[in-house]
Amino acid sequence: MKRVRFAGDTCPIARSLDEIGDWWTLLIVRNALAGTRRFSEFQQQLGISKNILTARLEKLVEAGVFEMRPDPAGSRHREYHLTDKGMRLRMILLALRQWGEDELFDNGEEMTILADRRDGKPLGKLQIRSHDGRALEEADTLLTVGKKAAMADTRTG
Amino acid sequence: MKRVRFAGDTCPIARSLDEIGDWWTLLIVRNALAGTRRFSEFQQQLGISKNILTARLEKLVEAGVFEMRPDPAGSRHREYHLTDKGMRLRMILLALRQWGEDELFDNGEEMTILADRRDGKPLGKLQIRSHDGRALEEADTLLTVGKKAAMADTRTG
Repeated sequence: MKRVRFAGDTCPIARSLDEIGDWWTLLIVRNALAGTRRFSEFQQQLGISKNILTARLEKLVEAGVFEMRPDPAGSRHREYHLTDKGMRLRMILLALRQWGEDELFDNGEEMTILADRRDGKPLGKLQIRSHDGRALEEADTLLTVGKKAAMADTRTG
Repeated sequence: MKRVRFAGDTCPIARSLDEIGDWWTLLIVRNALAGTRRFSEFQQQLGISKNILTARLEKLVEAGVFEMRPDPAGSRHREYHLTDKGMRLRMILLALRQWGEDELFDNGEEMTILADRRDGKPLGKLQIRSHDGRALEEADTLLTVGKKAAMADTRTG
């Protein structure tokens, strides 16, 4: 079954979903951020079939989210390392994490927690802010159309 | 084909993906945040089949992401309104948007932009921060296990 493709869409959300928007992909990236590098480790941790994992990793290497490297210990196993592009997915994972924490767990339920290594406390909540730091509600925002360069200029200006 | 379920997983990311982690769901929510309310509008805007849209909306009403309301104009059409739980998905959509902007568009390419209504400028970049506002890199974080209430206490304290 072929699904609709959004790779050429003008909406960045649609393009992102086209590239990384399936359950397994984001769980693979989650485990890679936690240090997993080998095919067999991903397979074991996620309980994912060999076929699906192979297909997902191939697609993610092609997309530049992972790169393959030889095992530094010299075995013939390859390692999968997140690229900078792949590392930047951590923001999406944190947003998914915080929504899940707030909406899908009961008080007292056991959960994994992403903590600050320095003081062991959970991270702060992500906040939607204007370019100059004002907190924004949904009603304060407006969807427009523009070009990427103009946007980058505004951000760094 | 039945996929693996993560609804009982201790990882909030896995639970979130279980509930809202498919392409259509997040695009439906995106359009709802932009003001879409009627079945026929969602269908037309997204080019989605009636069957898939029906199934997704039913699941999302059941999950408490949308609620159905009568048409205020009195027609027999029902409207789909985001609940507070559904509105809070905007953080995930913004994270997807910003990653897509940075990684999947060339300079000069046309894109939709989420702007501040007050000054028309694109929103600020989401930032990963500690509970007391320090910017954190991946290496500054640590994955632990805890209970939800303890976490809430830490955040408000």
